[in-house]
Amino acid sequence: MNVSTQFLASPNVVLLEKDADLRPLASVDSKALTKEKTLELSAQIAEFQNVLYAQQKHKLLIILQGMDTSGKDGTVRIVFGASNPAGIRSVSFKAPTAQELAHDFLWRIHQQVPAAGELVIFNRSHYEDVLITQVLDWISADEVKRRYTHINAFESMLAETGTTILKFFLHISKDEQKERLQERLNDPHKHWKFDPKDLIERASWDKYRDAYQATICATHTEHAPWHIIPANSKTQRNLIIASIVVEKLASLNLGYPAPHPDYLKIKVE
Amino acid sequence: MNVSTQFLASPNVVLLEKDADLRPLASVDSKALTKEKTLELSAQIAEFQNVLYAQQKHKLLIILQGMDTSGKDGTVRIVFGASNPAGIRSVSFKAPTAQELAHDFLWRIHQQVPAAGELVIFNRSHYEDVLITQVLDWISADEVKRRYTHINAFESMLAETGTTILKFFLHISKDEQKERLQERLNDPHKHWKFDPKDLIERASWDKYRDAYQATICATHTEHAPWHIIPANSKTQRNLIIASIVVEKLASLNLGYPAPHPDYLKIKVE
Repeated sequence: MNVSTQFLASPNVVLLEKDADLRPLASVDSKALTKEKTLELSAQIAEFQNVLYAQQKHKLLIILQGMDTSGKDGTVRIVFGASNPAGIRSVSFKAPTAQELAHDFLWRIHQQVPAAGELVIFNRSHYEDVLITQVLDWISADEVKRRYTHINAFESMLAETGTTILKFFLHISKDEQKERLQERLNDPHKHWKFDPKDLIERASWDKYRDAYQATICATHTEHAPWHIIPANSKTQRNLIIASIVVEKLASLNLGYPAPHPDYLKIKVE
Repeated sequence: MNVSTQFLASPNVVLLEKDADLRPLASVDSKALTKEKTLELSAQIAEFQNVLYAQQKHKLLIILQGMDTSGKDGTVRIVFGASNPAGIRSVSFKAPTAQELAHDFLWRIHQQVPAAGELVIFNRSHYEDVLITQVLDWISADEVKRRYTHINAFESMLAETGTTILKFFLHISKDEQKERLQERLNDPHKHWKFDPKDLIERASWDKYRDAYQATICATHTEHAPWHIIPANSKTQRNLIIASIVVEKLASLNLGYPAPHPDYLKIKVE
């Protein structure tokens, strides 16, 4: 069984705290070995990406979602850190600006989707517009459902027009978040990563988990599947995501564009 | 003397073919050693960039210009390839679209300048609008001068509002370009990199060199200096550029944001 299938969500997924702690790829329980494998996969992603870029045909969209401290930034840095900046773009969606709020919620997202030959990572995404909005009751249950429908239609359009979409939920437990937040607070060098709002959101942990669960169930489609990544272990998380991305890139049968036989006759003066 | 000073343009620079062939940092003439040093510098750039990103204060803009095959793509891949995609962006400016042409020539450029905390690389730039346009007589000599003035004012505004600008001219000789183009033509796997228009532009080599020379002289300012990089040797080119970028980043005295003493008292529940 390939790694992707192993972590694929199901239409009725249940997010259990204990699952965040799984270390399923730790057949040999060595952190060093896991890191080494991830480094190899990261280099493979960079190689595939060079062909993707040359071919200017496929578009790859990676969506990272997860609670605060779940490791979205770390995933970008480690899994995609070896890639050529020319063909990769990481987009971080913050609280929307006034201008963005004056448009539909997919407006700013659509502007950032990958062009042909690009690999784009969304660090947070349009999914925030059905998560925090749902938890804080900013939108009605009916509006949530309408947005699910819009999201599925939007992603289906992207897929039909040549975009490969991989969605990852980085699954950490409430205890793990506690440790990671405390670590940030105890280390003055990490204070820039801390936002007092994180504690307010943490207080709504169960509501967020339920919202994630409902959202994943409603938007897990064949053309834009969710993967649930046990993320209490950072090294396991990176290895799993890197494996799934490599599997997907390999399945695209990427190749350099066809040569021009007439070019072989040209002599440069 | 630091590396940056060594390659700084002068207000009356003359681009000599033979200078493209210099290997000034090859004190020990070993390709392997040069590559190893570049790799170290590339890792240092990635480290600096993490602080730049955390600090959200400085903005770094790198502008790469040069004749076809001069190594702009290779520089992006090798010198900046180790950096975290979250804080780095490579922007490649192609022939302008109809919408872009309907605006002033700096319109599309301004949209892509770095935000606070970002390192952005321009692979070609607004300088194309005073190069090809000048060589092919699309604009008058007066218009060229007006554009120089606009460019200097624009870059001065960026610098005054917190952007550090480094401009690199990758200097190759006409013979070196001949070899590189022929290599692309002889290798079917590299045909995707070849554009028949490259040969037409090559026929205007002297005009392009003169246009570059005039442009560098007119836009070499204290706040946005040009560096002339001997680029016939790819390994030397990478080492020189990486050295200059590291020197500049080191001179910014980057640091993580100040800690919040009150955060140390917070206990996460």
